[in-house]
Amino acid sequence: MAYEASALPDVSGLTVGIIGGTGDQGRGLAYRFARAGQSVLIGSRTAQRAGQAAEEIAALPGVAPGATVGGAENAEVARRSDVVVIAVPWDGHAATVAALAQPLAGKIVVDCVNPLGFDKQGPYALPVAEGSAVQQAAALLPESRVCAAFNHVSAPLLADPEIDRIDLDVLICTEHRELVDIVAALAARIPGMRGIYAGRLRNAHQIEAFTANLIAINKRYKAHAGIRVTDL
Amino acid sequence: MAYEASALPDVSGLTVGIIGGTGDQGRGLAYRFARAGQSVLIGSRTAQRAGQAAEEIAALPGVAPGATVGGAENAEVARRSDVVVIAVPWDGHAATVAALAQPLAGKIVVDCVNPLGFDKQGPYALPVAEGSAVQQAAALLPESRVCAAFNHVSAPLLADPEIDRIDLDVLICTEHRELVDIVAALAARIPGMRGIYAGRLRNAHQIEAFTANLIAINKRYKAHAGIRVTDL
Repeated sequence: MAYEASALPDVSGLTVGIIGGTGDQGRGLAYRFARAGQSVLIGSRTAQRAGQAAEEIAALPGVAPGATVGGAENAEVARRSDVVVIAVPWDGHAATVAALAQPLAGKIVVDCVNPLGFDKQGPYALPVAEGSAVQQAAALLPESRVCAAFNHVSAPLLADPEIDRIDLDVLICTEHRELVDIVAALAARIPGMRGIYAGRLRNAHQIEAFTANLIAINKRYKAHAGIRVTDL
Repeated sequence: MAYEASALPDVSGLTVGIIGGTGDQGRGLAYRFARAGQSVLIGSRTAQRAGQAAEEIAALPGVAPGATVGGAENAEVARRSDVVVIAVPWDGHAATVAALAQPLAGKIVVDCVNPLGFDKQGPYALPVAEGSAVQQAAALLPESRVCAAFNHVSAPLLADPEIDRIDLDVLICTEHRELVDIVAALAARIPGMRGIYAGRLRNAHQIEAFTANLIAINKRYKAHAGIRVTDL
């Protein structure tokens, strides 16, 4: 069962909501999905801020004519989306996710939050009682199907309109195997990206934490590093 | 400061010892270094087993005419080597490393051990009191310079004489920046490999643990997966 982009489902009709869509990572993902022609909803704590971010994203170069980019308060975004990306800062993660349990029921939830701390020696992985951010989300969202993905995408690359292609594998951790192809298909909407199943939720911690290594790599080599899985 | 293979030091004169050189990972690394023409010493608990493994490796196809592959008891290998790779099973890691503190004093120590458990759901990262295997080694070897590297190399690929090239980045974690180029140069002796600085020891845990994800990827995609860092 090799990775086969051509075997992935058609996800072009799905609406993708981004909780925390006004932050760098959420905004960058929203932009890339909008470039691909996906319907995107930006979520924020206030509808006003979400609407403003949506307008800004829709006006960026390369956004597909068919794409619609809307903005709304987080709960409404959750309700109106098929796939909901959680892209909030770690310190608001538990509270934000818990408050959305009802509107997220029945939805596919993609958590891309990395619990990192920073000190003068740089970034490091924070301990998480549940094991990882995505396990925390899964515990708080018993009626949703949850995965980790898009943890390693570089916000500056996502945001740069000059960049057409981002060579990166999106590692997907989940207990719900049927999500893998859907999320992989969403990843494949961004040129250069592949979505790769990378294990169960109990093995998501190290993928989130690996973002600290990517930051160290970026600093040393002046890069916007990601990872590609070899032999696939 | 981009990755530049041509700027790496000449390490062809260094003797590489492999503690646990009779196991799959150690044996595979020894074989690849011997193919590159490096002097290699296989360590084991008994000189007899080490000598036998060394003879077997030296007889494999592709071993460079100039390479010497010797075998000796672990402590002697540590004493006679410039760079010593720790490739023992995790459950013997602390005891083996602690017993070698004296002969490893002043040496470069490369720990490639991954603390993993396995149950019917597959592999998972084991908790380590010191944070990671390499941090445990660093704590036990105060007079050595320690790094993590070669954690993700696939033993079956290393061992396959038909395979000339292994596309993989070797992630190097250490507190000793001057080790990075030496270990990167050793990695580059294996065609297809690059050695990349990936952060301090406190960020090594997730690199060791990521081996569980690679095992999940291998199972799903019938691969021998590694990772390549993009944008370098």
